[in-house]
Order: sequence, then structure tokens, then C-alpha cells
Amino acid sequence: MKYGHFDDKQREYIIETPKTPLPWINYLGTEKMFGLISNTAGGYNFYRDARLRRITRYRYNNVPRDLGGRYFYLKENDKIWSPSWQPVKTELDSYKCRHGLGYTIIESEKDKISANLLFFIPIDENIEIRKVSLTNNSKETRSLKLFSFVEFCLWDALDDFTDFQRNLNCAEAEVVGSTIYHTTEYRERRNHYAYYTVNTPCSSIDTDRDAFLGNYNGFDTPDAVINGECSNSMVSGWSPIASHCINIELAPGESKELVFLLGYVENPKEKKFAKSGVINKKTAERQIAQYANTESVNKALNELKTYWDKILLPFQIECEDAKLARMVNIWNPYQCMVTFNLSRSASYFESGIGRGMGFRDSNQDLLGFVHQIPERARERILDIAATQLRDGGAYHQYQPLTKRGNPDAGDNFNDDPQWLILAVGAYIRETGDLAILNEKVPYENIEEFSESLLDHLFRAHNFTLNNLGPHNLPLIGRADWNDCLNLNCFSEEPGESFQTTANKGDGKTAESLMIAGLFMYAAKEFEAMLKTIDKPKDAEKINNAAEEMRKNVNLHGKDKEWFIRAYDAFGKKISSSENDEGKI
Amino acid sequence: MKYGHFDDKQREYIIETPKTPLPWINYLGTEKMFGLISNTAGGYNFYRDARLRRITRYRYNNVPRDLGGRYFYLKENDKIWSPSWQPVKTELDSYKCRHGLGYTIIESEKDKISANLLFFIPIDENIEIRKVSLTNNSKETRSLKLFSFVEFCLWDALDDFTDFQRNLNCAEAEVVGSTIYHTTEYRERRNHYAYYTVNTPCSSIDTDRDAFLGNYNGFDTPDAVINGECSNSMVSGWSPIASHCINIELAPGESKELVFLLGYVENPKEKKFAKSGVINKKTAERQIAQYANTESVNKALNELKTYWDKILLPFQIECEDAKLARMVNIWNPYQCMVTFNLSRSASYFESGIGRGMGFRDSNQDLLGFVHQIPERARERILDIAATQLRDGGAYHQYQPLTKRGNPDAGDNFNDDPQWLILAVGAYIRETGDLAILNEKVPYENIEEFSESLLDHLFRAHNFTLNNLGPHNLPLIGRADWNDCLNLNCFSEEPGESFQTTANKGDGKTAESLMIAGLFMYAAKEFEAMLKTIDKPKDAEKINNAAEEMRKNVNLHGKDKEWFIRAYDAFGKKISSSENDEGKI
Repeated sequence: MKYGHFDDKQREYIIETPKTPLPWINYLGTEKMFGLISNTAGGYNFYRDARLRRITRYRYNNVPRDLGGRYFYLKENDKIWSPSWQPVKTELDSYKCRHGLGYTIIESEKDKISANLLFFIPIDENIEIRKVSLTNNSKETRSLKLFSFVEFCLWDALDDFTDFQRNLNCAEAEVVGSTIYHTTEYRERRNHYAYYTVNTPCSSIDTDRDAFLGNYNGFDTPDAVINGECSNSMVSGWSPIASHCINIELAPGESKELVFLLGYVENPKEKKFAKSGVINKKTAERQIAQYANTESVNKALNELKTYWDKILLPFQIECEDAKLARMVNIWNPYQCMVTFNLSRSASYFESGIGRGMGFRDSNQDLLGFVHQIPERARERILDIAATQLRDGGAYHQYQPLTKRGNPDAGDNFNDDPQWLILAVGAYIRETGDLAILNEKVPYENIEEFSESLLDHLFRAHNFTLNNLGPHNLPLIGRADWNDCLNLNCFSEEPGESFQTTANKGDGKTAESLMIAGLFMYAAKEFEAMLKTIDKPKDAEKINNAAEEMRKNVNLHGKDKEWFIRAYDAFGKKISSSENDEGKI
Repeated sequence: MKYGHFDDKQREYIIETPKTPLPWINYLGTEKMFGLISNTAGGYNFYRDARLRRITRYRYNNVPRDLGGRYFYLKENDKIWSPSWQPVKTELDSYKCRHGLGYTIIESEKDKISANLLFFIPIDENIEIRKVSLTNNSKETRSLKLFSFVEFCLWDALDDFTDFQRNLNCAEAEVVGSTIYHTTEYRERRNHYAYYTVNTPCSSIDTDRDAFLGNYNGFDTPDAVINGECSNSMVSGWSPIASHCINIELAPGESKELVFLLGYVENPKEKKFAKSGVINKKTAERQIAQYANTESVNKALNELKTYWDKILLPFQIECEDAKLARMVNIWNPYQCMVTFNLSRSASYFESGIGRGMGFRDSNQDLLGFVHQIPERARERILDIAATQLRDGGAYHQYQPLTKRGNPDAGDNFNDDPQWLILAVGAYIRETGDLAILNEKVPYENIEEFSESLLDHLFRAHNFTLNNLGPHNLPLIGRADWNDCLNLNCFSEEPGESFQTTANKGDGKTAESLMIAGLFMYAAKEFEAMLKTIDKPKDAEKINNAAEEMRKNVNLHGKDKEWFIRAYDAFGKKISSSENDEGKI
């Protein structure tokens, strides 16, 4: 079955039915605010960290699937429909979803009213813009009611659906005109709030989920929509939402455009309040004023397109195979940027709660985007290195908001440190920025433990040498790149994570051939790096260490032959990127 | 508004509409398997621990609310309805929910087909029985299709909705006749499985949620029900469910009864398999055979009623105030048993994930049920005491499955230890079982740290004395009974739990008057206990310690007067339960 097609000129994938086998999603956002959006407008937003700063609520693995999102309802007399099909699921006369680079457009028509929904997060702003364009293609004047809907999350996505004793008692909101401020916990210990607004007066609003939905109703049949009016509810505990009800009259052929903004604002602690009890809304008001007209929205969308031009155009291929060109020129680099932004911390199957960003993962991801955004790759390398442990090992994961190693996930994935060497090598080869090696970077995020990045690489290298097993091969620790090879921490008890369960024995037996190969591969990279910065003696030392591992390996016969063949193959791989002197 | 009424004779609360303002729930189970059930059959089951052994899936704070449960669908031609109203929500001609002691009955009628659903967990069996009785009250023969439905949880309720990378890849099931075995992870590291069965042949079954529901459908409109047949799907990953489709023909006036069982079975490790790859079903088969007929179901229900007679009848009052009698004779002792069984670890607002059972809570709860089930109160006391720390302090919470203190929640709630003294005192006063004081009980669940229970009480007493502040009053630690008084660990940072955030300062300043009063209260209890076991010197020591706190308190003027009045009042409270010699 075919559900859509690529539009290479627009750099879009066009989905032709809302009823895809699973939600087909896009990622919005380039800097700090992000969104996941499905082809039926499902998904959620967060600020930097999908666990700690979840802005809107989303229920994974729900029934029905993919419920919760950026919803709009249109009501005309007794007829109710959603331009994104969900959540009402009224059959549409036409439907298209266009997933582009950092934006998504959903176009649909029902009974000669056509809708165009544009979703994107502008460069450098913590807002998601939702432009709703409605056109009357009939010959009569049409009177519609448009309802918006978002459900707010109470910031920490894990608490939000485990700790109800607390979180059903704390929701708060403020309403000013058409702007609904989600201010839960702002009075107490948070210095951030969210808001949802529209650039037109509303006939009514709701901020309380139960008031909007009514008892036992789903998102498909809210009382407010069925009744044709919100009830101006003010949330106090329970579940905060934002819904606008707007009257729209369209003459034959007439179009109207509305701009909705979902914003996230942080204030400095000393400027949290405008006056006692009233939150400081300056940033929000500036944003609301700035995007009140569609020209500024279109301008922001153009800036987003220019941003992608800058990333993609320097590296384009032309070839006869349209699919190869499409992959190399558009979707692979786009995907690499998504991994840069979210690592694998949040997707439609990664709940954004469990893992934060991986040390190994982030170093690997960097290999894919280093040429696209070298400045940010630099920042990422320094962030990652700052979570490294003083013995050269690494926390396996870190939380993107705090940039701290995640003690819940543990350390001792013994391949981790080597990936840092490879990431730094790739970065230097791309940029020539050798100065990065002199940057002072903390260990364990503790400033007084700061040393040069070069020192971090030496410790990464030595970590492997300091952790050899009975065959003089690297000890595996909890696991190597094959996360499932848990020789020391395999557990027969249910519920014990291999990431955190106590190791069996002393961990001095199980070795990893994969880490040996990786060590060789990284040693060659490191050696070339050291030659380039004129440290020939250090380069020699690294080279010797790699040679010694080959020499000292405690294997015999065929085993040894096989090992040496593989080990040397790893050592040769890197040479294709060296120049004649073996420098980067 | 009135939604129901009490039936004192049947010891039931009768709910007269499915559309209560919130789900009104009952608790099933008396020993190890438990269930929460709402008046529309929503809720879930677990074995001992709502986090670690969740049997069926339930989504808290969902939209629509209270979705997921023990569902039945009736289909007659194109008409579909649920006898419990949810999930189909077809208007019923009549509806009643009877929440009784450990059982719930839902009776409804639609177009002259009446349904009676009985839900309960028999004493000493890890099964939930669901008896479905259907009666044709019309004058025509009626042909119906009955569908059952449960959705299985992948055992660990937290992982189940956070770790999809893993849990969407592991579901497994086995089907034998009308029995659907949920065997996920059994092959690997679990020795337990669940099953759902019915005592009649099925026309078809489903084990895969997507196959049963179809794409994007809710529980209200499953494809299988709409199509009139399950598709005999075999789950492999994704979401395991169990659904039976049964053809039922009813002559005018005819009734039919079906017995569904949701079972949980643990096998010894060495007897996990009947033969390679085939799970050992002996226990399940015994249960299925035993409850295949309605007589044995009725017998088990009668045993449950006898069980409640035994608990309630020894302590009954007669009085003119029917409401007082109702509370004292039925619902208060019932509620006390619920807190015994579940502490506050699982309810419709406690997700069963966050906290396990509280040290303070469980000791307090015990005061309410000690006269009802003294043997089990004894066991509970020993379980709680075994989580006590060696300095006399306590883990604040423990996990009911493992009976281990929960390091996630921390310790240092400085009132905790005193509650153990009060619980033991209440138990001894009720039973005269002084031998419990000689029971060897571990500290920190470590056998080699075992001492007598009496030693535990001394350490609890001394814990307070060893932790006095500048006014010679007890230090508060993280909090006292007022969990919100977090003087040492109040955090200005969002996301830091008061239970686990690092304490500010050395914790040597903030004191708790409440703990001082509690200390006095418990000291009097302890003193009486020591007199009773003929340890007058120890009794005097305890008494002196309580007197000294009064004497040494570093307060002045009105503060001191007030303190002494309150402190002495605590000391007098206990005396009403003493005999003339001040013994228990």
C-alpha cells in the first residue's frame, strides 16, 4: 500500500491519508524548544528536555493510539470536524499532510470549507506557531465556530503520570484577553511558564479539562464543542488545558488566517513577578505582538527555510538515482540534525523519560552532523566531555537540561570513552579547530576537576589500557556497543535493569573484542591528532599502546590469527582520512 | 444530587447510575491478588505489588477518564452494548452497581436482555472470578455474541509506560482451548504468568490488541466486536490482550451463566516448564477445572462472605443512629482492611508506582485492623521492623513484593520509629502475645543484623533521644507527620523531591514539637509494655527519659508552659488503656 510520496523540490514528504498504519511523525524545533507532530497533529512539545520540561501532555501507547496534540475543531450547526482528522475522525473530503524540514502542513477540506494548518518553531524563539487558514469554497456565507485545544503537562513528565497525590492539586492559570497562561508552580519554585494565545478576540475560553470535555467524554466529543461555547473555566488543580472558541464568518470565496502561539518563557529569578502575585509577562507580550500578523509568521517560516538551505546546500550531490540524491541531499542530513537535537531521548517510541542523552550515542551522532553545524558540534563535545569521569570512564547517559551525568543509568559501559576520541577527531578534521584540545573541561561536571580536552582524550585512551582482562583484551564492563551483551550484569531476576543491577563477580573476566577494535580505531585517530599538534612523542606512545595490544594478546592459533586480522583492519580504516604524513 | 444508597442488610453500597462524578471504586482481594474496580468495571489487577506485578494495564488520568478494565461487549445484529456501560456507553434501560465487601455486582438491562456481572477474588486463590449471567426477558429467541476483553500489563507498571524500546518487543502468549496465557518474559527471567479463560468453547479469540481494536479505534469501537468475530490473532511484541468471542442463544425466559477467570500463577524455578518451550500449566488447569461450574463459584463467594462475618461480627454495635452503626459495623472496618492490604500504595489516585508502603502509614493502619486479623498484624509488624535501620531510624517506605526498604524514598522522617512502638503496643494489648517481643527480626533486611523485636523498640526510642536539637527537642529530619514541613530539605529547585533532595545544612537545627509529643505518647506505651514483661528497671529508664525531655527543654516563659501542657497531655492519652498498675 502507498500512503504518500516525496516532493523533492519542496523537500517534503506528502502523506495522503490520515489513516497511516502508525502515526507518521515529524520533529519541529532547532534550538531549545521542540515538538513531535504526527500526520494527524498528535504529539507534544518540550523545552530542551523531554522529561524535565514537558510543556504539553501526551500519552504513549494509548488507546486509541496517538491521542493528545495540537487540536482544532470546526463546528457548523451540528456538524463537527477536525482539519487534522483527529481527534473527531469525521471523514474528510480531502486530506494532505506535508512533513517538511522543521515544519508540518496539514491541508483538508470538508463541505467546501478548506483548512490549512501550518506548524513550526521559529529559529531562536521558544514558541510553536500554528497558523490556521480557513477558506469558504462554497457560494453561501458560512458561520463557523473554531475551537483550539492543548492539554498542558505539569512540567516533569514522569511525575505527571505517576504522582497524582501531588499533581492533581497544583494546576494554575492566568487569562489575559485571548492568552491563557499555564503558571502551575510558578509562584513556588519554578521560573518558567507556558502560554497559548491567538491573535483575535475569543467568544469564550476554557482552562480546565473537565469543564471543556465534560464527564467521561473523549477528545472526540468535548462538551464545549458540542455546546458551541467554552465555559470560561478557571483551572484550580486537576488538569490545565487551553481552549479558545472563536466565531468566524466567511463570505463566498473568503479566506481568514489566525495565528496561534504556544510559548514557553523563563524569567530571571529576580524578575519573576510584575507585581505581587502577577507574573512577569514581558517576553510573552513581546512574542505575541511580534507574531500577531501573518507577515511576521511568513517571514519566520522563510528564515527557517534559509536555515535549512545553509545546512544542506554546501553538500549536495547530483546523480541519476533520484532516491540516492534525495537521501544524501535532504533526508539523511535532516535525520542527523534530529539526532543532534534530541539524540534518541524522545520520539514516538522513546517516551522522553527513560534515558536522557547517551554518551556513546551523542558522540556517534556527532559524526553525522559535524560538517553541518560545526559550532554546535563543538559545544556538544564539551558538554559530553564534562560528564566524563576522572578515571576516563563515562556516565552512560546525561540529562539534556542539566547536562549532568545520570546516576540512575550508571557507568561502566567500557566502549563509551573511545567514542569521545572519535568525535573529537571528526570535529577537528572537519574544522581544523585544534584549539578545542586546549579548552578546559570539567570532569564529572565539577569545575575544580577541569583539565584540557586533550587530557580527557588521554584518560579515555588510558581507561581501556587500565581495564584489561585475562587475555589482555579490554574488559567489557556492563556492555559494549552491543548493549545486550551483559556478561557481568545479566540478571535472572525480573525488574533488574542491566544498566543498574550490581555486577556479578569482580568484572575482571569478560572481555570485548569490539572494544579492542574500537580502541585500535580510536588510537589511530588519536595518533594522527597528536602528530598534527606536533606531539610526536605522545603520538608514538599511543601508537605503541595499540601495537602492544596486538602483541600482548593472550590468544593462540586460529584465535590469534583471526584477532590480528580484525584488529589491523580497524587500524587501517582511519587511514583513508589521513594525509601522507599520517596527520589529520 | 444522589447517585446511590446503602443496603445495610447486604452490606452493599448501590450505585444507581454509571455516570458518577468520578469513578466510584471498590477493592477486591484479601491475600495476595488484588483488584481495583470502578462502578463501570474499570480498573486493574495486581499480585501483591501494584508496581512490580501489575497484571492488567490501566491508564491513570486518561481521556476519557477510567478507561481500561474488565470489559464485556454484547452484540445483537448491529446493536452493541456493554453491561457495565463502559466502554461502549450505549444508554442502558436499567443499571445498578453493588459494591459489597470484596465483591462488586453490576446489573443492567438493554432491550429485554438483562446482564448480571459478579466480580470477586476468592480467599486463598490468585484469580479474579467474573461470572456473567445473561437472561432473555423477551418473548423471542435471541442470538447474541458476547466478547470479553482485558489488556495485560508487562508486569512492571513503570517500565510498562516508559520503556517502549524494550516493552513493545517482548509480548508473548499461548492459547489452549478457551484459555489465553499471557507468558511474556516467562521463557527468560520470570517464573509467573497470567491467564484469562472462560468455561465454554469460543467461536474465536484475540491476543493482539491491534488486531482486536483495529487502527485508531478506542475500546468503545473494536473492529472485532463490530465485525462480530475475533481474528484468532497471536501476539508477538506490541500489546497483549485476551478477548473471547462466544455465541449465545437464549430462548424466551432462558438464562445462561458463564465463568471467566483472570489468573496469576507462579511456578518454582525448577518446574517452570512441562516440556521444552511449554509452560507448566498445572496450577492454572487445577483452577480452571475447579471453577468450571457456577456451584463452586457460588461456594467461593459464600466463603468470602463468611470471611467477612468472622472479621466483622465480633465487634458490632447496636444504636439508634443507623449511620453510626453502618460506619462502625461495616464500612470503617472494611476500609481498615483495605489499608492493611494495600496500605496507600494503590488506589484510583495513587498510581501504585510511586511509593510502595509507608513505614509510618503501615504502623498507623495497623492500629485500625489489629483486632480484626491479629495473626496478620503480627506478620506485618515483623515485616515493617525488618526494614528498620540499625540506628533505630527507618526507611520511609518499602516495596510490598520484596519487603525491602525503598532507597529511592530515603529515610530520616524522624517520627517514623515512634510509630513502631505504638503499633507493637496496640498489638500486644489486643492479643496478649508478649512472645512477639522475643522474635528475632533483622535490621535493614539483613539476617546477620537480627535482634529481638524488643531491641528494635529500644532503638526506636533511642533514635529520638540521639537526635535532639538546640532546644533539646527532637530534630525533625526530612519531615514529621506533617510531610510538608520540610525545614531541612525544602528545595527552591523544581523537580527535587523533598524525600530525596540533599538536606540543607547539617540538619541540627529544625525541631519538631509533634515528634516530642509522639515520643511522650510512645514512651508511656513502651513503659507499660516493659512493666508487663517484668522489666521494671527498663520501664523506669523509659519513664525517666520522657520526664527528662520535659525537664531539659530549652524553652522559656509562655513557650515552656505551652509545651509542658501539650507534652503532658500526650502522656495522659495512653493511660486510659492501662489497668491500675499501669500495665497493658
